[in-house]
Amino acid sequence: MNYRPVIDDLYRKLKMADNPGRLATYIPELANVDPEKFGIHITDVNGNSYGTGDCLEKFSIQSIAKVLSLCLTYKLKGEDIWSRLGYEPSGTAFNSLVQLESDRGIPKNPLINAGALVICDILISILNNPGEEFLEFVREVSGIPSINYSERIAGSEKSAGYLNTALCNFIKSFGNIENDTEEVLDFYFNTCSIEISCKELSQTFLFLANGGRKAGDGKQMLTLSQVKRINAIMQTCGFYDESGDFAFRVGLPGKSGIGGGIIAIHPGKYSIAVWSPRLNKKGNSYLAVEFLEQFTTRTQLSIF
Amino acid sequence: MNYRPVIDDLYRKLKMADNPGRLATYIPELANVDPEKFGIHITDVNGNSYGTGDCLEKFSIQSIAKVLSLCLTYKLKGEDIWSRLGYEPSGTAFNSLVQLESDRGIPKNPLINAGALVICDILISILNNPGEEFLEFVREVSGIPSINYSERIAGSEKSAGYLNTALCNFIKSFGNIENDTEEVLDFYFNTCSIEISCKELSQTFLFLANGGRKAGDGKQMLTLSQVKRINAIMQTCGFYDESGDFAFRVGLPGKSGIGGGIIAIHPGKYSIAVWSPRLNKKGNSYLAVEFLEQFTTRTQLSIF
Amino acid sequence: MNYRPVIDDLYRKLKMADNPGRLATYIPELANVDPEKFGIHITDVNGNSYGTGDCLEKFSIQSIAKVLSLCLTYKLKGEDIWSRLGYEPSGTAFNSLVQLESDRGIPKNPLINAGALVICDILISILNNPGEEFLEFVREVSGIPSINYSERIAGSEKSAGYLNTALCNFIKSFGNIENDTEEVLDFYFNTCSIEISCKELSQTFLFLANGGRKAGDGKQMLTLSQVKRINAIMQTCGFYDESGDFAFRVGLPGKSGIGGGIIAIHPGKYSIAVWSPRLNKKGNSYLAVEFLEQFTTRTQLSIF
Amino acid sequence: MNYRPVIDDLYRKLKMADNPGRLATYIPELANVDPEKFGIHITDVNGNSYGTGDCLEKFSIQSIAKVLSLCLTYKLKGEDIWSRLGYEPSGTAFNSLVQLESDRGIPKNPLINAGALVICDILISILNNPGEEFLEFVREVSGIPSINYSERIAGSEKSAGYLNTALCNFIKSFGNIENDTEEVLDFYFNTCSIEISCKELSQTFLFLANGGRKAGDGKQMLTLSQVKRINAIMQTCGFYDESGDFAFRVGLPGKSGIGGGIIAIHPGKYSIAVWSPRLNKKGNSYLAVEFLEQFTTRTQLSIF
Repeated sequence: MNYRPVIDDLYRKLKMADNPGRLATYIPELANVDPEKFGIHITDVNGNSYGTGDCLEKFSIQSIAKVLSLCLTYKLKGEDIWSRLGYEPSGTAFNSLVQLESDRGIPKNPLINAGALVICDILISILNNPGEEFLEFVREVSGIPSINYSERIAGSEKSAGYLNTALCNFIKSFGNIENDTEEVLDFYFNTCSIEISCKELSQTFLFLANGGRKAGDGKQMLTLSQVKRINAIMQTCGFYDESGDFAFRVGLPGKSGIGGGIIAIHPGKYSIAVWSPRLNKKGNSYLAVEFLEQFTTRTQLSIF
Repeated sequence: MNYRPVIDDLYRKLKMADNPGRLATYIPELANVDPEKFGIHITDVNGNSYGTGDCLEKFSIQSIAKVLSLCLTYKLKGEDIWSRLGYEPSGTAFNSLVQLESDRGIPKNPLINAGALVICDILISILNNPGEEFLEFVREVSGIPSINYSERIAGSEKSAGYLNTALCNFIKSFGNIENDTEEVLDFYFNTCSIEISCKELSQTFLFLANGGRKAGDGKQMLTLSQVKRINAIMQTCGFYDESGDFAFRVGLPGKSGIGGGIIAIHPGKYSIAVWSPRLNKKGNSYLAVEFLEQFTTRTQLSIF
Repeated sequence: MNYRPVIDDLYRKLKMADNPGRLATYIPELANVDPEKFGIHITDVNGNSYGTGDCLEKFSIQSIAKVLSLCLTYKLKGEDIWSRLGYEPSGTAFNSLVQLESDRGIPKNPLINAGALVICDILISILNNPGEEFLEFVREVSGIPSINYSERIAGSEKSAGYLNTALCNFIKSFGNIENDTEEVLDFYFNTCSIEISCKELSQTFLFLANGGRKAGDGKQMLTLSQVKRINAIMQTCGFYDESGDFAFRVGLPGKSGIGGGIIAIHPGKYSIAVWSPRLNKKGNSYLAVEFLEQFTTRTQLSIF
Repeated sequence: MNYRPVIDDLYRKLKMADNPGRLATYIPELANVDPEKFGIHITDVNGNSYGTGDCLEKFSIQSIAKVLSLCLTYKLKGEDIWSRLGYEPSGTAFNSLVQLESDRGIPKNPLINAGALVICDILISILNNPGEEFLEFVREVSGIPSINYSERIAGSEKSAGYLNTALCNFIKSFGNIENDTEEVLDFYFNTCSIEISCKELSQTFLFLANGGRKAGDGKQMLTLSQVKRINAIMQTCGFYDESGDFAFRVGLPGKSGIGGGIIAIHPGKYSIAVWSPRLNKKGNSYLAVEFLEQFTTRTQLSIF
């Protein structure tokens, strides 16, 4: 299917529309981004790819990195990881501590901050140089050796990271963080600081649309079963307490970041990345969700 | 695809396996069911159908009815219904009142008891004879005119229905129930009391696998968009606080009932009904979930 | 000590002051009360008594009755009652259901609605004619044979009693209500419907200031230990989630009702009743709390 | 009144009784204390004083220090402090984070950890050398210049302080901590590390029984109104989610620490300190609560 006409048409239409969203402000560096940026890029399993708007401009991946750190951990440790965290939607905001109190330090799923911190802790325990090795994994799965952390963003996030520091220490108080909390937080802030364009992002996540085979050489990165399960987790947990909304309106597994990016996966078909920095009240990109809803409506294709 | 060999093989294997599940006891009549019952029936969009075990024996549909009352309401009122309830996973048990307190009487979704009570209230407000007309709808969508309520089950449920009475009055205290609470509860208990076999159940739900066209004459029951959205809601909310687990293990939208039945939908392919009365701790049929996990693993087909 | 000058002075001053409070509206009959009513009456352990303003006019006792039903139950059953409910401040509003879910149907204390319903249930189980016998107890402790229920108020409360119906059924679902919920609710609404003047109210509660000996003949109604414990419960739980505030500002055990009345006890010294129907946001009489704060400040007498 | 016979008698009796309590273990140094220690000391407003058992041995004051830091802050800032925290019982455990999420970083009261951290933050903002000046205040109010911090205990607490670190960062994320979280935590751990004997403790707190006038020279440390309010806060909030229980059983304002100490105040009469390191499930000294319950029962004196 040629997605180009639909993408172009929706891009033009939505570029003009009112956008009630607001820039994330609690990470100082993110507040400097041009709020009018808007990029889209799709890559399909047959190797076709198409982008428009600011699709070549790098932005901060933020929470989308949670899927990548989960993939690496799942690949290395298999089902063992589920003794440390769950895979249920939380019903609460991305940074909620409430659930951890009743669940004694076991995060509901790997796509909320608490769960991603536990995932980072697991990686620190099994890797010699977690920072390097995670970056290598992202470069390999994407086939893009230039992908890198942003020290500037990571530093900015750390300087304002009181809530994540609270989360990490709270989980540690229940014994579910093994390593030093500073080390876990530094690694976590690094993973979130990766800078990437829509084109690179859709290419990076193509393996989740392609049964585990990455773009380019088709190398199997995860088993088919693991890929299906990660897609399932994205479907039920990828948008915090708006995950039901994304399933309802868009009908694809996906993950958002407060940098304004969203990646969505149509298993067997394509991966699509959309970026627009203005966020809705739940912390998801207003325009990216709008675009994806209209995209799956127009193409009449979703997983449901 | 011929599902018969996989179904037969899994049926034989699981029939023998240990089952740690337990019969639901809080509705007296349900405690009388033979806990060893086990039936499976699949119906595909091409009209093929296959069943095994106790697939022709009727059981109590219970919460699976929530999807049918949602369908009728959605058909009659469209998107207006979402001012009265949401479509987010609740993160809590099927009968939790906690969420209603913070959300001022707006249930999280239509597949928990609170939401289904609001759906029943909406139907009472728009139908002349809700009990009759709901039954007609189920008979039409299934093509089975003999489907009926069980007065015995409905009466049994009512006699022990303190929690549902609490829920209904609690929602009414926030003004989100328009009709008399007794009337809403009676109608709700009736919908749950429908008795149906696996064969009938998979036939009834085929329209959700078939873009809204019902089994037999292919009549369009809901729009394609409505069908996709109902499937999305089943995926994120169909199994209470085990919805993430069902997505992770099985990878299909579905709905369970405490009668031990589960319906699952593979959009574009089939609907499958499994029945085994022993429930796990979350109130979902232990064996039916096991079967469906192994079924989608063997066929390597899920929506993810 | 002659309290008359302080009372008169404060009455005049506060009668003029702005009152941001609002009439309770959810019980229809209470919305008809003149919001400007303001009465005060004090009775001391030496038999002196003094009142001003509308201190002879009857008003609806509402939740103040919870202390009286607790007294009767405590007298009849002793410490056994504490297996059915606690004596801890709830930290939540008077009608909250949340706490009951985590505590499996055991109310935090007898002065919130949930706890008072359990107290009513206990009385129904041990009395032949709970309605009559409770009224007799109130008449005896007060020495006022004309005190009576208001059918009008009880009926009005019942007609709007969705939240209390929810609470009672919710507790019953955990097995902590033994009797029929309708019967428990009817009895509860009756206890709340008692009409009483400030003068009668301060006389009724004098026994709690007087080591258990009632006004008039000094008959011992409860043991000294029971009286101290009921005063302690009033201190920590008497004003819902504003109990800390009343202790902080007034420094006396007491109990409020949404009819606008407050009774406060100075053990060994006096009981004082204040009535003004406008309530603050927590459901306690704005003016009555103001009066009592200034009264204990002026007299420099509180229990602390 | 001569309290000596009652104290001696109860000491002998309870020294023999079974004690199901357990030593606090989460601060490593506290786990080394002899669990059989048992000391009592009373000081009355007339200058009489009497002690028994291990009443001259120093123990770790822990959370009892929260009252002293509150006193100093209240003295210096007056009612302004209540914009930063409340004075309501929390209804939850001493270290709960849940409440802070719904209350946006405003602790319920100054006697739970969250509130004490805010109090420490306020002191850091207004004092040049908070560590020194707080110690001076404690020395002055007690008249005991040798009272000091324990570096050993403070260090031990810091090494295991994940939960307090979580709390402090969580409050800071809402903007209700002004200073560096490390500095606030260090000061907080120091205040908790003060070592003191029962004799010294009852002498230190005498001013709260004596209208603000300290032991010895009778110097006014706080206004009468402030003293009454601090006693009220101790009454409703001094024992975490067991505050109602202490009011019910003992009937005096007080405060416990996980070092096993409890201070209780009878306004106008005496202050009494009891120490026994074995704690009940709520974190309060089992034996000290038992002693105080029997003490106020025998003397028939409580504030209620």
